[in-house]
Amino acid sequence: MWKLYQFTLCPFSRKVRLALAEKGVAHDLVTALPWAPDEAFDALNHFGRTPVLHDAERKLTLVDSQAICEFLEETEDRTPLVLGTAVQRAEIRKLVALFDQGFFADVTHPLLHEKMKKRIVLRQAPDSGQLRQAMKLAHEHLEYIDWLVGTRRWLAGAQLSLADFAAAAQISVADYLGGIDWAGHEEAQGWYRVMKSRPSFRPLLAEKMDGIPPPRHYADVNS
Amino acid sequence: MWKLYQFTLCPFSRKVRLALAEKGVAHDLVTALPWAPDEAFDALNHFGRTPVLHDAERKLTLVDSQAICEFLEETEDRTPLVLGTAVQRAEIRKLVALFDQGFFADVTHPLLHEKMKKRIVLRQAPDSGQLRQAMKLAHEHLEYIDWLVGTRRWLAGAQLSLADFAAAAQISVADYLGGIDWAGHEEAQGWYRVMKSRPSFRPLLAEKMDGIPPPRHYADVNS
Repeated sequence: MWKLYQFTLCPFSRKVRLALAEKGVAHDLVTALPWAPDEAFDALNHFGRTPVLHDAERKLTLVDSQAICEFLEETEDRTPLVLGTAVQRAEIRKLVALFDQGFFADVTHPLLHEKMKKRIVLRQAPDSGQLRQAMKLAHEHLEYIDWLVGTRRWLAGAQLSLADFAAAAQISVADYLGGIDWAGHEEAQGWYRVMKSRPSFRPLLAEKMDGIPPPRHYADVNS
Repeated sequence: MWKLYQFTLCPFSRKVRLALAEKGVAHDLVTALPWAPDEAFDALNHFGRTPVLHDAERKLTLVDSQAICEFLEETEDRTPLVLGTAVQRAEIRKLVALFDQGFFADVTHPLLHEKMKKRIVLRQAPDSGQLRQAMKLAHEHLEYIDWLVGTRRWLAGAQLSLADFAAAAQISVADYLGGIDWAGHEEAQGWYRVMKSRPSFRPLLAEKMDGIPPPRHYADVNS
C-alpha cells in the first residue's frame, strides 16, 4: 500500500492527493511537518521536502510532486490528467510549472512563511508588507486565470487536466491563509468553485491546521 | 524551423540546448536577455523567462524547460533521455527537479545575481557572504553527486539520462561564474569531464558572456 508523506498546507502534497483521488489510487496519509525532522522520512528523501510517495513492500520511493504525478499518469489508466497531443501535453506541463513554481514563489511560499512558519515555529508576527505583496501578485495570477477561463473551458484547453489541479492546489492553500481576494475575478472564482465541488477536493477542504483557522468562505463550495 | 529563445548563462536554456543537440533537432538560437525586455518575446511567453521554443510556421510555442524536454521526448525517437521503467523515469524526473529547483535556488541563482546581474545591470559589487554561501551549498550538492556516481554509472542509474544533462547544465553555469571548487570531488569531477566531452556540450563551452570572462579551467575537458 502507498503511503503519502505530506502535510495539510503543503500545496505540492495537495496536488498529489488530488491526482491520487481522481485516479482512485488507494493510499494512507502520513503527516511530515517541515519543522519536525523525522529520521524515517529523511532516510527516504535527500530533498527533505514533501510530498514523498512510498511503498515499503515494493521498496518504491517517489519524490517530487511532478515526478509522482507523471508516474501515476504512466501507471494508472483511470482519469488521464496529462492528456491530448504532445502540444497539448506541453501546454498542460507549462501551466503546471507556472503554478508550481511561479505562483508558489510569488504567493503560496510567502504566505506560508508569514502566516504558518512565523506563527507556529518562529513565534513572530507576520510582516504586513510581505502579505500585501503576496496578495498583489495573487491578483495578477488570478487575472491570468480569468483570461484562461474566458478563452477555454479548463485552464489548459478543452479538457480538465493536471494544470487545473496544480493551480487549485496552490490557490486552496493561499485561500486558507486569507491571501486570496476574489473581488473582480468572477471567471477564476467560477472555475475554482467547480474545482472545490469535486469529490477529490472535499477531504482537503475539511482539514484544518492546528492553530491556524481558515477564513469562513474557505470550505464553502458556493463562495 | 524551431527558434530557441535563450541566453548563454541561462541553465534551463542550456538543458534544452543539450537535449536538442543530443536528439539532433535542428534549431536557430535567438538571444533573449532577462534585462532587455523584448515585445516579440514577451508576446510568446506570459512566464517572461527563457527558454522558449517557437516555430512560427507551425504556430507552436513551448514554454518551460521541462515541458520542452518532455515534448522532445514524446516527439523525437532519437536518444531517449527519460527512459526505462516508470520507476526509473520517476528517478530521472526527481533528479531533474533536484537540480532545476534545488541546485538552482541554492547555487546557480545566487551566483547569477551576484556575478552577472550585479555586474551588468545593477553595477554593484558582489556580496562575498552570498558567494561563500552559494559555494558552500554547491559543495553539498557535489557531495551528493559523488555519492550517486559512486553507486551508479550515471546520475539516475545505468543509462545516461536527462538527469545528467539537467545537472551538468546547472553546474556549467556555476562553474563559468567561478562558483565550483572541485577539490575533494573526484567522482563528480570525473562524471562532469565526461559530460563536457560530449559533442552536444562543446558549443556551450565555447560561448562567452560579454563582460564576464570564465575561469581558465571552465572549457578544458581535462580539468
